[in-house]
Amino acid sequence: MTVTFARRMDGLKASEIREILKLTQQKDMISFAGGLPAPESFPVEAMQKVAQKVLEQQGSQALQYSTTEGYEPLREKIAERMNRKFATSVQANNVLITCGSQQALDFSGKLFLNEGDIVLCESPTYLAAISALKAYQPRFIAIPTDAQGMVLAELEKTLASQKNVKLIYVIPDFQNPTGNSWPLERRRGFMEIINRYHIPVIEDNPYGELRFENKIIPALKSMDTNGLVIFTSTFSKTFCPGLRIGWIAAEEKFIEKYVLIKQGADLCTSIRGQMEIATYMDDYDFEENVEKLIQLYRVRRDVMIEMLEKKLPQNVTFTHPQGGLFLWVQLPEDIDASELLQDCLKKKVAFIPGESFFPNGGGKNTFRLNYSNMAELNIREGIKRLVQAILEYQTDSKKRVVG
Amino acid sequence: MTVTFARRMDGLKASEIREILKLTQQKDMISFAGGLPAPESFPVEAMQKVAQKVLEQQGSQALQYSTTEGYEPLREKIAERMNRKFATSVQANNVLITCGSQQALDFSGKLFLNEGDIVLCESPTYLAAISALKAYQPRFIAIPTDAQGMVLAELEKTLASQKNVKLIYVIPDFQNPTGNSWPLERRRGFMEIINRYHIPVIEDNPYGELRFENKIIPALKSMDTNGLVIFTSTFSKTFCPGLRIGWIAAEEKFIEKYVLIKQGADLCTSIRGQMEIATYMDDYDFEENVEKLIQLYRVRRDVMIEMLEKKLPQNVTFTHPQGGLFLWVQLPEDIDASELLQDCLKKKVAFIPGESFFPNGGGKNTFRLNYSNMAELNIREGIKRLVQAILEYQTDSKKRVVG
Repeated sequence: MTVTFARRMDGLKASEIREILKLTQQKDMISFAGGLPAPESFPVEAMQKVAQKVLEQQGSQALQYSTTEGYEPLREKIAERMNRKFATSVQANNVLITCGSQQALDFSGKLFLNEGDIVLCESPTYLAAISALKAYQPRFIAIPTDAQGMVLAELEKTLASQKNVKLIYVIPDFQNPTGNSWPLERRRGFMEIINRYHIPVIEDNPYGELRFENKIIPALKSMDTNGLVIFTSTFSKTFCPGLRIGWIAAEEKFIEKYVLIKQGADLCTSIRGQMEIATYMDDYDFEENVEKLIQLYRVRRDVMIEMLEKKLPQNVTFTHPQGGLFLWVQLPEDIDASELLQDCLKKKVAFIPGESFFPNGGGKNTFRLNYSNMAELNIREGIKRLVQAILEYQTDSKKRVVG
Repeated sequence: MTVTFARRMDGLKASEIREILKLTQQKDMISFAGGLPAPESFPVEAMQKVAQKVLEQQGSQALQYSTTEGYEPLREKIAERMNRKFATSVQANNVLITCGSQQALDFSGKLFLNEGDIVLCESPTYLAAISALKAYQPRFIAIPTDAQGMVLAELEKTLASQKNVKLIYVIPDFQNPTGNSWPLERRRGFMEIINRYHIPVIEDNPYGELRFENKIIPALKSMDTNGLVIFTSTFSKTFCPGLRIGWIAAEEKFIEKYVLIKQGADLCTSIRGQMEIATYMDDYDFEENVEKLIQLYRVRRDVMIEMLEKKLPQNVTFTHPQGGLFLWVQLPEDIDASELLQDCLKKKVAFIPGESFFPNGGGKNTFRLNYSNMAELNIREGIKRLVQAILEYQTDSKKRVVG
């Protein structure tokens, strides 16, 4: 007799990426693979003071169970910041605190998806959103994208021909993996279509505040006249991931459902971390910290792009993100990024092959590079190694073809 | 056009209990309703030192993302403590850190349950386990219990007649809600049946260490010769709930699957909290803290039982738990505990009506009392009010019948 698992588990496989990330922990490895923020940016000393203050002044409450919705003062601050930064008009009641924004993705699958329902997403899209939603056994349709985000004609065509679309998942700001952002006009056009078809949209926005040039573009949520947009974000990229604090901002009718789901899933998010972020915002300049991150990542992006422009062969193209943590490389069709990765790992440099970002496969000649987690010197050295691997791969292929 | 939710949401309703718990926050309310540990037991000062140390010595790591499995030193300590306390023989590799043990319940539903699969549980059982598993749309069969736990003849009968049992959920130590524990013989008999039918078992054990008299009884997991028992516990009851740290201990073949689920669900549990508990265990006497909790809760249980014995009418019975946080009251058939609660709330005393602990309804004349969260004086006063309400309810019923 063997124990049987639920059918949904058939789709959840140990990801190749996990294995890659394990390898990247080797000494001397320069890794552009993960999506980690720079640990040297974490306000460790301030957090020591904040942690003390919270335990001293509210210790019993900080260490106790708390409400499922989250710590009211933090929900208020989140609403205020969102409205200020992204031109939304949400209130504390519209905000549910989650364990990182990954939890918001899982909960969204739980809330909306029956087996076989269709989820639309960008092509490519965030791989961990695919894993989170896959557990609810939907069918994904990945809508083609250009440098301005989702191609609206393709979206419209799909919505007109598919009856069963239950959810649309998008990352309009410095998308993971491409780094591309949707300009205002694309956002307006998207919302016009959404309002006609009346489909809920997850607007995943972990990077929007990390804009290196020009002004933040208003969120889809700010144009959401029919209450369809479920905005999700996190303190993992603007503060630190270790507290595991993210949020969902949506109409109360959705928040009520998410609260029910959260009660069953983990009761509540640690209130101590929520108190600490709220206290940090009172006692320190949160925006100054964000500004520091912007400076740091801008320099790293600049160095990476400078190196790529200088070194890469002409037939390799890449995106030029104006913010966020990632850029995206497109190789000639005959280069397989997973094979290239094997060569790169020997040279002690790593990236994530693009295929995992396509829910239905494809993108074998693409990969994602992270620039937030490596110092400039390492970025220079890592890109040299990477380019060397690409050049050798191409030479070897020619040899193979000739031979 | 209206947005449609997944079918699973039909079964998830805002719980009556949430409303009760809101009312219990009124001033002067004596609440036996929640399941909160005593906040005065939290080692707030030690936590201040521990929090400082972790941030000083491992700040960047503590505030960064971490591995899905959890912080290795804590996984080792958990395995060691489990083996010492519950006679199991697990290792760090068998342990996955979760956001409280509630998350283990959600993940277990995700791992094992297709719509319509059968879950067996005790009757009554932990209401939040019902909510967690309900999201996966199983059918519950609640197996009758006596003062020694699940009635094995009934379990055997159900297993013999039902083909589709995928999971069995039990709380053998100081069960929530009854406070009853399974003696060794019952555990052995249960495992004999489980091994014959080869069904995975969730052994939920948040209270096992809080035993007021006699020795801890070996866990089901310690008798698990076929690797079927998935043990779950938490630091919420032996340390503090605010860190949201629980765990699953099971065969590696299960842990691998749970890890995949956790990656999709929330990536990882906050590593800082895990480091803090591990550091606390190194620098302080964790067992001394558990011993203090035992002393505190024993006194509270004693006072509650003393009061109930002295004051309750003879036709009301209740359990005499040897540990844990709860006891269970059975009223005469003609008293509806939900109605009684309304009277009690007017008298500023609260409990949870028993019906919510029966997945298929029933138990209208039962309720749960928590004794961990109230000081002795409040317990005395609260039970007086409660008994007064019962007496008045009975008098009024007679009047109603006569009138």
